[in-house]
Amino acid sequence: MKKVNSGYKLWKKSIKVIPGGTGLLSKRPDRYASYKWPTYFGSAKGIKIIDLDGNIWRDFAQMGLGCAILGYNNPQLNKHVNKFINKGINTTLNCPEEFFLAKKLLSLNKFAKGVRFCRSGGEAMSIAVRIARAKTKSTKVAFSGYHGWHDWYLSTNLQNKDNLNKHLISNLSTLGVPKELKNSIFPFKFNSVEELKKILLKSKSTKIIIIEGARKDTINLEMVKYLNKLQKIDKYVIILDEITSGFRTSASGVYKKIGLIPNIVVYGKALGNGFAINAIVGDECMDYAEESFISSSFHTERVGFVAALKTIEIIEKEKLWFHLNRMGKKIISSWIQIANKNNINITTNSFYPLPSFAFNYNESLNFNTYFIQELTKYNILGANSIYLSKCHTNVEIEKYLNKVEIIFKKLSKIINSKTNKNNYLEIPQIQTGFGRLT
Amino acid sequence: MKKVNSGYKLWKKSIKVIPGGTGLLSKRPDRYASYKWPTYFGSAKGIKIIDLDGNIWRDFAQMGLGCAILGYNNPQLNKHVNKFINKGINTTLNCPEEFFLAKKLLSLNKFAKGVRFCRSGGEAMSIAVRIARAKTKSTKVAFSGYHGWHDWYLSTNLQNKDNLNKHLISNLSTLGVPKELKNSIFPFKFNSVEELKKILLKSKSTKIIIIEGARKDTINLEMVKYLNKLQKIDKYVIILDEITSGFRTSASGVYKKIGLIPNIVVYGKALGNGFAINAIVGDECMDYAEESFISSSFHTERVGFVAALKTIEIIEKEKLWFHLNRMGKKIISSWIQIANKNNINITTNSFYPLPSFAFNYNESLNFNTYFIQELTKYNILGANSIYLSKCHTNVEIEKYLNKVEIIFKKLSKIINSKTNKNNYLEIPQIQTGFGRLT
Repeated sequence: MKKVNSGYKLWKKSIKVIPGGTGLLSKRPDRYASYKWPTYFGSAKGIKIIDLDGNIWRDFAQMGLGCAILGYNNPQLNKHVNKFINKGINTTLNCPEEFFLAKKLLSLNKFAKGVRFCRSGGEAMSIAVRIARAKTKSTKVAFSGYHGWHDWYLSTNLQNKDNLNKHLISNLSTLGVPKELKNSIFPFKFNSVEELKKILLKSKSTKIIIIEGARKDTINLEMVKYLNKLQKIDKYVIILDEITSGFRTSASGVYKKIGLIPNIVVYGKALGNGFAINAIVGDECMDYAEESFISSSFHTERVGFVAALKTIEIIEKEKLWFHLNRMGKKIISSWIQIANKNNINITTNSFYPLPSFAFNYNESLNFNTYFIQELTKYNILGANSIYLSKCHTNVEIEKYLNKVEIIFKKLSKIINSKTNKNNYLEIPQIQTGFGRLT
Repeated sequence: MKKVNSGYKLWKKSIKVIPGGTGLLSKRPDRYASYKWPTYFGSAKGIKIIDLDGNIWRDFAQMGLGCAILGYNNPQLNKHVNKFINKGINTTLNCPEEFFLAKKLLSLNKFAKGVRFCRSGGEAMSIAVRIARAKTKSTKVAFSGYHGWHDWYLSTNLQNKDNLNKHLISNLSTLGVPKELKNSIFPFKFNSVEELKKILLKSKSTKIIIIEGARKDTINLEMVKYLNKLQKIDKYVIILDEITSGFRTSASGVYKKIGLIPNIVVYGKALGNGFAINAIVGDECMDYAEESFISSSFHTERVGFVAALKTIEIIEKEKLWFHLNRMGKKIISSWIQIANKNNINITTNSFYPLPSFAFNYNESLNFNTYFIQELTKYNILGANSIYLSKCHTNVEIEKYLNKVEIIFKKLSKIINSKTNKNNYLEIPQIQTGFGRLT
């Protein structure tokens, strides 16, 4: 392997001009292998990324935080997008593709009657919340999971600064969030009908329920039944955030597989294979999107629509979700097998297109760090979760698992040695929650 | 001219699946020539747009609501963007262009220390407000002008439903906006130091001032002096919204020309010539963007950065703002001349890159409608304001003005005839404020 310090050098410059170094928390190197992480890419193709020093890496980590479901740089998609760029993308008139994409999404989401678009997941969830609040005439929301950076979401931490700690990103500050929004949004544990019921009982004006389709696991049957019961009561609005889960178990959301009937489904990430596009797809409640002012120049830009139409076409044609689930199952069962063989205690998840595992040890963060550190030595970008893509083939996965086997074997020795437990880390322990760069 | 009904037919279908028919209020045909408006485009080049029936139109209206400062479909820009698309756009690692664009914007905005990016004007203003609120530890804002669809902005209408009526878009509903935000944001008339002073006197915790660089006119000297005085007091944060005005009088904002020192400047629209990219550029207060959680997958997508870098390069190289101002002056003086010649009473504006005029009559909306209607007969997309671009050449403007002359002459007869004043409209009167589609 060549040197990998150009990326980290650029990072050191970047944090001086971009607060936090990057617009996405999950793209900070301190969440992976710090100065051993390439941090920047020049080009990418399939699951391969070429860093600024010319090293080739294989992505068994985030795949653009779940955006690149077709793999990076899909030639069919690029050809299509480039063709439309050369026709013009943002004029005084509308592009027909906004309508075509709306029609396509309605055909994939039979419960729905209307669609609106935007260009970031956080903004998409804010649009959904606006529509739901317009319908319910109440600010109150019960939620589970991660839904972005906007005020409505972070405001739950005004009540209790730990409210979000169990919803993907811990330690989220409320600095700059209007104090007036305190007591407007209440968290419940994923899949805990009991906790959700408690909120709805205690706060009668809470009629909006927001939940992720899947993160580690999918919404369970008990929750599906409960939400479907609420959904039938006209006053409630169930918003399903499928920004992460969408297009990974079907040509739309996971909700279909589990029989959930939402009022609004929100898509993003995989929808445009990395091009910025989000969709808010809803039933009759979308009528409130016409009562409420939601409008932006870039919501109507053509590239996003065109990219999404082609991405969905490829996903549908290849029934890509079967591949993602097959590969995810394979990885999870291999992780378990390798861990067992090496007497390492891990827990794995059940949402196969995004397989993940956790080390069941007090030193789990150190072990996670070690795992990432060792994978970098094989030019693998790794983490304890993998957003799978079309380009994660059997052959690539086998090669990856061979390295996991070597690493787990070494880790087993570390776990069983009683001394110098920290010597095995060549890099700082990974950062997990939110915080200033240190 | 061929038939123009394919666009309107598509519109009729679109309003059934997209609430409001489009993601941008200003792209609704009822704001122009209704069913005589082409509404949709297939392709565009320079200032020419080809509609779905193959008609060629010349854009003397919005140029993608101000996005297409280089004209539509700039070949140099497209080549550059397409090259990067074929390298991969959204991976697990960062793209260096996020840093390069931050550096470039800092070099153009010497007062600034940090930059963050996003993908819609509304979201960009929300980021600026978050940062300012984090710094001032207060929710309160004094503002002038239009700043998007987000809660913080619309909430002013909770106080008084007419608060926003004089800030570009009237009749904006607060449906779905948290009632808790009432009394958090207070409007002042553009360039009224008196009104702003009154707010700051009455509400001592109001330390955030938000103002547009220019819309009809630029910020005046009195306001510049007053804001600069406030800016020196550490507690205040001046947010300058240059989404509309940016890159039209210099290679950055209008603030430089008028000697204003802001704390935060927000750019968008022209920044990427239509590709979705916004920048929040600020002084030391940007440090709060690291304390506060602001993060999104699509904020780090590569196309926006790459498009902005090339767009700025072309703007700078050609000193494009000179052209825009020269052409704007020419159009304004010609409008005045033609109006005078025909005894029509109009008022024109002083922000030349975005020339506009108003008919000074009770029937002004009818006259605006007539003006647009008559321009469509010459295959010109018109309105009473024009976002000028690199491609609005002398020759094109001369041709346009010839048609204006014919139309004003006819309008003069209408104004002076005392009977059947409404017969001259072949289309419904244009819609201006916000509302449901009718």
